[in-house]
Amino acid sequence: MDWESFYDAHPSPSNYEPTITAVENFVCSHENKKIVLVTSGGTTVPIEQNTVRFVDNFSVGTRGSASAEYFLEAGYIVIFLYRSNSLEPFVRHFNNSLLDKLEIVDDKLIQVKNSEFDILYPILKKYKDAKEANRILTVPFTTLIEYMWLLRGACMLMDTKYSLLYLAAAVSDFYIPPNEMSEHKFQSKDGPPMIALRLVPKVLKAVTHIWAPNAYIISFKLETDNRILIQKSKEALKKYKHQLVIGNLLHTRKRNVKLISQDDVVEDIVLTDQDIENGIEIEDLIVSNVKAKHDIFLKSHK
Amino acid sequence: MDWESFYDAHPSPSNYEPTITAVENFVCSHENKKIVLVTSGGTTVPIEQNTVRFVDNFSVGTRGSASAEYFLEAGYIVIFLYRSNSLEPFVRHFNNSLLDKLEIVDDKLIQVKNSEFDILYPILKKYKDAKEANRILTVPFTTLIEYMWLLRGACMLMDTKYSLLYLAAAVSDFYIPPNEMSEHKFQSKDGPPMIALRLVPKVLKAVTHIWAPNAYIISFKLETDNRILIQKSKEALKKYKHQLVIGNLLHTRKRNVKLISQDDVVEDIVLTDQDIENGIEIEDLIVSNVKAKHDIFLKSHK
Repeated sequence: MDWESFYDAHPSPSNYEPTITAVENFVCSHENKKIVLVTSGGTTVPIEQNTVRFVDNFSVGTRGSASAEYFLEAGYIVIFLYRSNSLEPFVRHFNNSLLDKLEIVDDKLIQVKNSEFDILYPILKKYKDAKEANRILTVPFTTLIEYMWLLRGACMLMDTKYSLLYLAAAVSDFYIPPNEMSEHKFQSKDGPPMIALRLVPKVLKAVTHIWAPNAYIISFKLETDNRILIQKSKEALKKYKHQLVIGNLLHTRKRNVKLISQDDVVEDIVLTDQDIENGIEIEDLIVSNVKAKHDIFLKSHK
Repeated sequence: MDWESFYDAHPSPSNYEPTITAVENFVCSHENKKIVLVTSGGTTVPIEQNTVRFVDNFSVGTRGSASAEYFLEAGYIVIFLYRSNSLEPFVRHFNNSLLDKLEIVDDKLIQVKNSEFDILYPILKKYKDAKEANRILTVPFTTLIEYMWLLRGACMLMDTKYSLLYLAAAVSDFYIPPNEMSEHKFQSKDGPPMIALRLVPKVLKAVTHIWAPNAYIISFKLETDNRILIQKSKEALKKYKHQLVIGNLLHTRKRNVKLISQDDVVEDIVLTDQDIENGIEIEDLIVSNVKAKHDIFLKSHK
């Protein structure tokens, strides 16, 4: 199986052991509760051994970070496996603007401006409640290899019907084998380089068949071409035998997703202009829908 | 000249006009004052027209964002041209941790915890002072093309001896011409793609000879191979005729830089372990050194 030789060729990242131990302790402290692994953000693929340049996926982590918030609200325990510096639950609402919301009072106190209190308060409250109750664990990655190791490790720890695997990260389909990487930064005097990419093995098959066959598993499909989205989603379900594909198009992904399940049912989730004006996020509707499906799954796996 | 055909082939980004007008207004409001353009962070090079994947440079913007703070302290007016979501001056100290420094008091007030006040206060004070005095303008970019247009526009507005151009951004040496980009996301069933990259024209020559020949110009060189760093820096000075190259190696860049100037003088700036323990940043020393050089330059260009 080519995913096995992929792991053989790429030893575990240096901080893998302590990280996966933290995940294990977290999972053990929430036994028999509904728990979701949300993966979020893109992975990098270095093109030099001393990494200066890399191929990246477009993803800021909106889908994953927003969904993690709604999963907490829906009563789930959350493991948030995310790309370093991509959006995080709660924090995402204030990226880079929080300093502007603060004011200095009499050089003795720093407080949130009155005008910002009503917006900040509910978010901060939910954030602190989730942290204090130890209901969320955030685990960062950067490279494809880090992601691959952490995904496998987390899945193997979550192989029960209570687990939802919500694989929203934009994982690279391609990589460059270490022995084909240039050791140093390309020199432009040598002319432009050609980068030959290899296909990353499809680990979803290992997730569904070996690492977490008992979990409820959701994969995501992002395309730019509407004509192939549904068909490719159905092919994925047939091939990997998991429960659900969430399909979306790059340019409409914030207002329209399609939920494709094993019986070839396609559900459309669409936000209206009114919904968007009212600040409704599509992840709220996705998570409600997914939770209902997971509840049915739980009942049928007594 | 191939930079001209590069700009011809890549029309200005959609938000270019309002952005460069803001830069112009800012520059005009600070005439005859020392002003620095700090460029920071990496540029992206899309590999598909409907961009899902891109080639990126490793850079979180530490050098640029820290330097911008020290330039403000040294009395400069600052234009901070930075990669979207990379580190920003002042904000960089709190990325993703600011929510943890806040506490809710009686459900009525949100304030910075007492234990965090002493650290946060001086940074927030400097941030607010700089903003209120209109001494800093931040201008984001993402793609190589956005960077190239904003760089040219800003340089042409800053062609005086009072201007320091501190070009710390990690700009891609390579790009893919629009007509050679795939329209849609690569399909993995077609096998791994080959990406053929083209060399980005060296615009530094245009900066030094055409756009801002009167400014004090500093370029940066990041290498991974110690053996070629000084030699490549000297070659750059010979070729582009600017004032200073700041050279650094990927793995020691936070504690050692080399300042190479036209007369082949190489100055070493090194932080000791003690310095690092004391929280001294190498950008503090770089900016002091550069300011002294710019002052001499100003005196000799009466």
